[in-house]
Amino acid sequence: MAEMVQASHELTVATAGKGFTEITGELARWLDSIAAEHGLLTVFVCHTSASLTIQENADPNVRVDLLAALEALAPEHRHYAHQEEGPDDMPSHIKTMLTSVSLGIPVKDGRMTLGTWQGVYVIEHRTSPHRRTIALSFIGHTA
Amino acid sequence: MAEMVQASHELTVATAGKGFTEITGELARWLDSIAAEHGLLTVFVCHTSASLTIQENADPNVRVDLLAALEALAPEHRHYAHQEEGPDDMPSHIKTMLTSVSLGIPVKDGRMTLGTWQGVYVIEHRTSPHRRTIALSFIGHTA
Amino acid sequence: MAEMVQASHELTVATAGKGFTEITGELARWLDSIAAEHGLLTVFVCHTSASLTIQENADPNVRVDLLAALEALAPEHRHYAHQEEGPDDMPSHIKTMLTSVSLGIPVKDGRMTLGTWQGVYVIEHRTSPHRRTIALSFIGHTA
Repeated sequence: MAEMVQASHELTVATAGKGFTEITGELARWLDSIAAEHGLLTVFVCHTSASLTIQENADPNVRVDLLAALEALAPEHRHYAHQEEGPDDMPSHIKTMLTSVSLGIPVKDGRMTLGTWQGVYVIEHRTSPHRRTIALSFIGHTA
Repeated sequence: MAEMVQASHELTVATAGKGFTEITGELARWLDSIAAEHGLLTVFVCHTSASLTIQENADPNVRVDLLAALEALAPEHRHYAHQEEGPDDMPSHIKTMLTSVSLGIPVKDGRMTLGTWQGVYVIEHRTSPHRRTIALSFIGHTA
Repeated sequence: MAEMVQASHELTVATAGKGFTEITGELARWLDSIAAEHGLLTVFVCHTSASLTIQENADPNVRVDLLAALEALAPEHRHYAHQEEGPDDMPSHIKTMLTSVSLGIPVKDGRMTLGTWQGVYVIEHRTSPHRRTIALSFIGHTA
């Protein structure tokens, strides 16, 4: 069998303020570009006020409700000791802690083993748009 | 030293509705079947209304309280924009976002490096029983 | 290119009771000691009442607010079915479920791909100090 390889890449994702940006397509394109066949993809967000989740990619209302749920868990109007970076900053750190900073996704036959309704999303927790850096790693066999 | 390998597998887990199903034994058996020795096991749930956690495997009351905590974080009686799939569906997505979709577990001397009280569980968030697909990946050395 | 390797290690982290202990430096030192160059570092906590997070390493008030947020999500004064190990034990399991038990961090050019403000922390959820075991795994190329 061919030797195992490791590869890495950096995605830049432009967010539009609080909300979800799907990156499933970008991940699949990168795996294609390196001919990834079998192994493990790791997705890592290099920030503390944006995070990752895998969620339903069908009804957009799901993301509306997910956003409301995060807002309820870390409301802006609560008193926080850390206030210097604006009222949306500390809630962003809390939301990041409660969701994911890294995701490991098995790759088989050149594709991520995602279920039918699973999409990979960057969650922007800050109010204003940001450019977010996502580090990717693949370890496994290529075609 | 022997060459590194990667292997993958798919588990099907029958759940009994809302609650925890332990899969620690199934994971250990798969690692045994491929003679996994040192490396990394990745466990990935291919769904958006079931998720993963590693929790105490001793007192069953721990899972009772964990379930109640998830219920309090995402109650069914709240108003959700996404309602088409029943009152337990949107809470299931929220609970999935707040727990884990993937777990990376180091493997050493043929065993997962779990602490004494750690068990790996699938959490079913839907009210009715489901068959859930769990993708497994191992990368490392075999015996 | 050189062959890929896998390496493992165990960190012991002394915590001071409820709060955050940064381990970014220990992780970097271990990667240095094995001459890790490109690949994937996995950090895994071998306990069910302590967990992991990657958070801002600048203003210490961020950790004050994160701790308060966890306390609000799983307060000690609520009634729990699991009470045998003290009032701080069941909240610890809930907080562990809502944060991370494992983290996958890409390694590039000998360094973790952490953003400027990202530090890796063990979160102790119990009231009294503990010694916590953290399992580390590296898979990739060494220098």
